[in-house]
Amino acid sequence: MSQKLKLPHKILCVAYVATSIDGRIARSGNSGTDWTSAEDRKFFQNALAQMDAVIVGRNTYEVAKTKLNRRNTFVLTSKAKLEQKGSVIFLNPAKHNLKKLLASKNYKRVAILGGPQVYNFCLQNKMLDELFVTIEPYVFTSGVPMFSGNKFKKYNFVLKSVKKLNNRGTILLNYQYAG
Amino acid sequence: MSQKLKLPHKILCVAYVATSIDGRIARSGNSGTDWTSAEDRKFFQNALAQMDAVIVGRNTYEVAKTKLNRRNTFVLTSKAKLEQKGSVIFLNPAKHNLKKLLASKNYKRVAILGGPQVYNFCLQNKMLDELFVTIEPYVFTSGVPMFSGNKFKKYNFVLKSVKKLNNRGTILLNYQYAG
Repeated sequence: MSQKLKLPHKILCVAYVATSIDGRIARSGNSGTDWTSAEDRKFFQNALAQMDAVIVGRNTYEVAKTKLNRRNTFVLTSKAKLEQKGSVIFLNPAKHNLKKLLASKNYKRVAILGGPQVYNFCLQNKMLDELFVTIEPYVFTSGVPMFSGNKFKKYNFVLKSVKKLNNRGTILLNYQYAG
Repeated sequence: MSQKLKLPHKILCVAYVATSIDGRIARSGNSGTDWTSAEDRKFFQNALAQMDAVIVGRNTYEVAKTKLNRRNTFVLTSKAKLEQKGSVIFLNPAKHNLKKLLASKNYKRVAILGGPQVYNFCLQNKMLDELFVTIEPYVFTSGVPMFSGNKFKKYNFVLKSVKKLNNRGTILLNYQYAG
């Protein structure tokens, strides 16, 4: 057996974000994304069908609980101890190793669905390999930002593709993490 | 003379924004945009050459004073009384009518160059007809947001064009205000 085959399998982590032109992803922490286009929702559902599990924060979980309970879902929270309810695992990533947990389940493709602290956590911990950003043609001027970090950092990405999703001007950008 | 010709001339106001993927336009209020690509700077300089005047906020003015002093520049500030220094006019838009002032100078094409409060002011006051957004392939996770409004609003835009500016993945989006 070659050296290569002995390595633990790589988990591909892909973040999905729907945003306004000005980088806002929601009105507030507990509001949904009812402003996204039908075309984006279709893309997103098709993409999720290819994923083994999803990672979300507590707010995102509360907003989309019914759907997320049907998936292999990891809910990152500062409060909970490690706890499993059906297919949903609640964990504090400061206390439990999320990467090891994903690897132990043998998941190969994992979707990161936000919110901003979860996107930031995954990026900081080199768990954000790819990024799909859907830009809907709105400006909100206020609301929840895409990422919320404590300090300004310059994470590099490379643009892989740009796709127009409809005539109105929803576009889908696909980036790859570049360090 | 037809009714149409009697109308005052329309001033076209075009906003230019360079942003990270996550909608951040600067590290802080008094930092520049040294992270933008050469291709964006070239586009921006060519675009500015077509404009009669520019509108900026106090912070943006301080960061780019040397260049802005050579243009017909309107600096929006909450502090100053109406004051002219060379080609630069300082005004408090809550006290003086910016639109009337632009019209009195017979300017036809005006560039809005930020920061976030100035973009927001122009959008709120129906003075943002067109928007050019350059997205550089970075995530900053923190920093100055593109627009800073007091409340969440849904301003509609229509995407006119998408252009890749370089191989790395800088893209230029052109939107038209749609109410």
